[in-house]
Amino acid sequence: MLQSKGYAAETKSAPLTPFNFERRDLGPADVVVEILYSGICHSDIHQVRDEWGGSMYPMVPGHEIVGRVTAVGSDVKRFKEGDLAGVGVMVDSCRVCGNCIAHEEAYCEKGFVGTYNAKDYKGEITYGGYSNNIVVDQRYVHSISTKLEPKLAAVAPLLCAGITTYSPLRHWKVGPGKKVAIIGLGGLGHMGLKFAHSFGAQVTLFTTSAGKEADGKRLGADEVVISKDPDAMAKQKSKFDFVLDCVSAPHDLNEMLGLLRLDGTLCLVGLPEVPLPVSAFSTVVNRRSLAGSMIGGMPQTQEMLDYCAEHDVVSDIELIGVDKLDEAYNRVVKADVKYRFVIDMSTMK
Amino acid sequence: MLQSKGYAAETKSAPLTPFNFERRDLGPADVVVEILYSGICHSDIHQVRDEWGGSMYPMVPGHEIVGRVTAVGSDVKRFKEGDLAGVGVMVDSCRVCGNCIAHEEAYCEKGFVGTYNAKDYKGEITYGGYSNNIVVDQRYVHSISTKLEPKLAAVAPLLCAGITTYSPLRHWKVGPGKKVAIIGLGGLGHMGLKFAHSFGAQVTLFTTSAGKEADGKRLGADEVVISKDPDAMAKQKSKFDFVLDCVSAPHDLNEMLGLLRLDGTLCLVGLPEVPLPVSAFSTVVNRRSLAGSMIGGMPQTQEMLDYCAEHDVVSDIELIGVDKLDEAYNRVVKADVKYRFVIDMSTMK
Repeated sequence: MLQSKGYAAETKSAPLTPFNFERRDLGPADVVVEILYSGICHSDIHQVRDEWGGSMYPMVPGHEIVGRVTAVGSDVKRFKEGDLAGVGVMVDSCRVCGNCIAHEEAYCEKGFVGTYNAKDYKGEITYGGYSNNIVVDQRYVHSISTKLEPKLAAVAPLLCAGITTYSPLRHWKVGPGKKVAIIGLGGLGHMGLKFAHSFGAQVTLFTTSAGKEADGKRLGADEVVISKDPDAMAKQKSKFDFVLDCVSAPHDLNEMLGLLRLDGTLCLVGLPEVPLPVSAFSTVVNRRSLAGSMIGGMPQTQEMLDYCAEHDVVSDIELIGVDKLDEAYNRVVKADVKYRFVIDMSTMK
Repeated sequence: MLQSKGYAAETKSAPLTPFNFERRDLGPADVVVEILYSGICHSDIHQVRDEWGGSMYPMVPGHEIVGRVTAVGSDVKRFKEGDLAGVGVMVDSCRVCGNCIAHEEAYCEKGFVGTYNAKDYKGEITYGGYSNNIVVDQRYVHSISTKLEPKLAAVAPLLCAGITTYSPLRHWKVGPGKKVAIIGLGGLGHMGLKFAHSFGAQVTLFTTSAGKEADGKRLGADEVVISKDPDAMAKQKSKFDFVLDCVSAPHDLNEMLGLLRLDGTLCLVGLPEVPLPVSAFSTVVNRRSLAGSMIGGMPQTQEMLDYCAEHDVVSDIELIGVDKLDEAYNRVVKADVKYRFVIDMSTMK
C-alpha cells in the first residue's frame, strides 16, 4: 500500500487535522500523483460539515488537484514520471454505460466515483486532495501543459470551478455574436467571466454588490448590472442568449429567466440547497429553458486545460498554507475570497 | 361596421349570455370568417372568471375557431369566399420585431394581440369565437383543407390545443428513435399523444388515473404509467428524451424531470397558476432542461393544419349547443370531458 498523509475531518463538527492513511498499490493502469496544490471548493465545506447529508468520516476533502506524476503502471502510455497532472471531481466511472462511452463521464448512469467522500466500486472510501499524493486510473487523470507550470497553483481550481463553467458555455455554444450573462461573482462566476470573454461573447455580469464592478470588468465583463436595482434589471429583459447562474444561495430564478430572449437557456451551476419556485410563465414566454450542468467529461476537461494553456486562462487565487484551513473555510462561507483558495501542499509537515 | 352576435360574460361571476356587438369593417388585408365551430379551452374559463387577473368585460371568449370565408379585402390573395378557414389564439402581432420577422409571432416582442380579452394596437377590445363571425388580417388566418371538412368541428381545438402540443414536439425534434413522455391526459395531453405517436416516437403516457389506460393506448401511447405508483415511476427514471408536461394543476416537477436522460428536455404547456419548486439537482443530473412553450408561429400553425389533413389527425370532441355552455364549463373544470368541448355555433339563435 502507498503511505499517504493529509488533513481530515473526523466528524462534521471537527476541524481538519493531520491524518495518516493508505492508498491502493499502483495498478497497471494507475498513475501516482504527488500533490503540489489543492483548491478549496465550497462543496468541500458542505461535505465536511455534512450539510448535504451522507458524509463519511474521516474525510480528506479536495477535488481540485494538481501535481507531478511520480509513478505509472505498466499499461500507462499517456503519462510518465515528472509530468504535470491534474485530478478533478471524479476518479472513476462505470465506463460501460451509454454516457461513459460517449465520454460524458460526469453523467455516468451508475454514478461516478467522487474523488473524496465517496465509495469506489470495491466499497473503499475515497480520499481527496488535501494530501501529499493520490493514485488514480489514467482515464481520470488530466495532462497539464508545461506552459502552465509558472502558474500551477492557479490551475488547481480549473479542475472543478473551471470545468463547471467551461462545460456549459461550450455545450450551449457561447461565442462571438452571443449575449451572455454571468450571475454572481465568486469562484464559479469569475471563471465564467474569463471563459465567456475568452470565447468572444458579449458578457454582462449581474451581481448584488456594487463594489464588484471594477473586478467584474477586469475579469471579462463588458457591462456590470447591479441585480438589486429594478430599473437596471428591467432594461436587461429578454436580451440574453445564455445565462450562467453561478449563485449558490436561494435567489429569484424567475427574474433571471426574464433576461432570456427567444430560445435562450439559463444554466444553473451554483446549486442552491433548497428548491426554488419557478413559474411556468417564466419559461413559456420566449420558450426559455432552465437547465443545469455539472463539471464535464474527461476529454472535455482535457480540452479545457489545453485551452487554458493556449489562451493563458487560470483562476484568481489566494495561496495558503495548511495552517490557514479553518480561516479559509470561514472566509469561503462569507464569500470573502478573490476568488479561490488554493492550499500549498508543501506546507504540510 | 360588421354586425356580430355572440355569447359574452358581463362580469367575472356572470354566466355567458347573448351579446350583440360590432366588428371592424373589412379592410384591404382582412378576411371575414363565418364561424361554424368554436372550441372551449380551459383558458377561456380562467379569463371569464378573471382567475389570471386583468380581464376585460364584456368578454366574448373563444380562440379555437373554424368556419367559412364570407368576404375578403382587396389585397387578400390567400383566401376567397367559401374557403374553410381557422383562427387561433392571436389576431395580430407587431410584424416588425425579430421574432415576428422570424415568423415566431407567438413570441412577438411587443406582445401579440389575443383573439379575445385583449386590446388591439388601436386600443379596441378583441372579441373571440363564441360568435357568428370574425374579421381578421389574412396573416393571422389559417387555411383548412377540404379533406378536413367532414370532421370540421374536431378541427377547432387544433387551433390552440393542437398547435400548443405540435409546436414543442417539432421544436425538440420528436420522431422515430425518440422516447417521449406525455404527462396528463386532457385536452392538451390527448393531442400530445396523437402527434407524438404520429411522428413515430415511442410514447409513454403518465397519468394519475388508472382508468385512462385504455384511452391512452387508443390515442397513441405505447405504454401507460400510473404516476402515483412510486415503483412504476422508479422504473422510468432517466429513460426519456423529451417530456411534454400537459398538467395545469400543481405537481411535482422534480419527479417529472427525473424521467429525462442526458440532455433531455421537459416542456411545460399546462401552465400551473402557481410557481412550482424546482431543485437545481433535478436539472444538474443528466444536464436536464425545464422549458416552456406557447402555441406556435403562423407558418407552423398552417403546417400543423396541413399535417393534420394529410395524416387524418383531429381532436376527440364533444359537440354541444350554446345552451350547454355553463354545463360544459363546469365539466371542463372537473376534467370531465373527452377531450375537448366544441360549440356548434349554428345553435345560436
